[in-house]
Amino acid sequence: MKDISDIGGATRLYAIIADPIHHVKTPQLMNELFRQRGADRLMVALHVRASDLIQAVTGLRALANLEGFIVTVPHKTAMLELCDQLSVQAQRVGAVNVVRRLEDGQLYGDILDGTGFVAGLRRCGLEPAGYSVYLMGAGGAANAIAFALAEAGVTRLTIANRTQAKALELVARVRSAFPSLSVEVGSRDPGGHDLVVNATSLGLREGDALPCDVHGLEPTQIVAEIIMQPPMTALLFAAQARGCCIHEGLPMLSSQIELMAAGMGVPLSEEQS
Amino acid sequence: MKDISDIGGATRLYAIIADPIHHVKTPQLMNELFRQRGADRLMVALHVRASDLIQAVTGLRALANLEGFIVTVPHKTAMLELCDQLSVQAQRVGAVNVVRRLEDGQLYGDILDGTGFVAGLRRCGLEPAGYSVYLMGAGGAANAIAFALAEAGVTRLTIANRTQAKALELVARVRSAFPSLSVEVGSRDPGGHDLVVNATSLGLREGDALPCDVHGLEPTQIVAEIIMQPPMTALLFAAQARGCCIHEGLPMLSSQIELMAAGMGVPLSEEQS
Repeated sequence: MKDISDIGGATRLYAIIADPIHHVKTPQLMNELFRQRGADRLMVALHVRASDLIQAVTGLRALANLEGFIVTVPHKTAMLELCDQLSVQAQRVGAVNVVRRLEDGQLYGDILDGTGFVAGLRRCGLEPAGYSVYLMGAGGAANAIAFALAEAGVTRLTIANRTQAKALELVARVRSAFPSLSVEVGSRDPGGHDLVVNATSLGLREGDALPCDVHGLEPTQIVAEIIMQPPMTALLFAAQARGCCIHEGLPMLSSQIELMAAGMGVPLSEEQS
Repeated sequence: MKDISDIGGATRLYAIIADPIHHVKTPQLMNELFRQRGADRLMVALHVRASDLIQAVTGLRALANLEGFIVTVPHKTAMLELCDQLSVQAQRVGAVNVVRRLEDGQLYGDILDGTGFVAGLRRCGLEPAGYSVYLMGAGGAANAIAFALAEAGVTRLTIANRTQAKALELVARVRSAFPSLSVEVGSRDPGGHDLVVNATSLGLREGDALPCDVHGLEPTQIVAEIIMQPPMTALLFAAQARGCCIHEGLPMLSSQIELMAAGMGVPLSEEQS
């Protein structure tokens, strides 16, 4: 796909479903990947509200030239129930962010947020093995990142969430899968951790509250975001002002694009007519 | 929308649903119109089989950034039942080819095939008023064209269809709306008519049978197609070989693009950020 005028009846389609939708950057990155591969494939963004998810996904099953779709806020957890097949990782995390539409309309769900986040850290020269990590959030993305960080060899994981019951539940599941790892529920203070990760949606909208107490942040700490738009959130500005090393949300997405393409069944090379 | 890289979360979407899908040319033409208007709007082609129409359309209602869609073979008649509101013309013709998605997900259906066909003839300097017309087909497009030709002032209309009961039914409805017009069911011989119109899908696929008996075609006759791809069908080749003036399917679509854009609520000019 090189030009808008190439979009036609033979184009294989991909989608990203989200609410809100304006901030998504995945179509731009995925369409660039399709362009590089010379593929007649296109990704579009679909605005789907939480209350409409089942109806929308049922409809997507009926589109024979739709190859797959990315699922993002607020649908990642709800999407789990709507897939016919799930990867082991999606089952463990309890969320889905990439769906492949099989030829008979069945949906295969996987989760790549965690793998993508860890790959994004490494792409920027940050190796999480041995880190003590403070993770904010207990939703779909936080779940995936918790398990991927545990797999990557962090030595301590503190999970903080506004609804503490959700944090407790995630802590229990990570402990069960990684018994030798120190995992506990945290307060709003991220002090004493090498890496501080925001995996909540706070920062997506202007005027959002900060996801943690930033007063105690020290220059030895790395503060990472998973929010892509705006690239600099209030949390990152606060961390920067306190001399912390910051890690924006975009490297995670860049790392995920190839993983997502593979997850939706996009071939590595194309035979073009 | 100027470039693939402009497609993102803010893009307003349009679709065309069809089966088969490969031949559709509407996305190319509509996206060129959006480009000319500097609009962040995009049309994609969705492959929807007849058995999946209800499921797909129910899903399209749930896409909040979908503004509307074009309906083509084989869904035009079935789409009538799936709209919440219908134009007078769609009710009379009994088919829908353009749907506007209202903000609450309700669907408003209209039919522009007939208007587009007549506009396409006029664009090529052919004025149907006073013509005797032989029309092949009794499906959605044929219905729309029959009523539009009657409105345009043809003096005689002969309708031929493989399933004669459908032709009889269409003849009765046109007679009822235009009592002074001579309307009758025809044989496979288009002789004695000024204008011969193929409004069946025969010619879409290689190896399709001819939609009428071409042996009697004479150089004084004009033979018109509504099939866009291939641009030259076996019928047009046969007509050309017998010295007839031919009229391809594309002018009808070109004429329809602006009508369709209006039908899906596309504004004439955009305020771009």
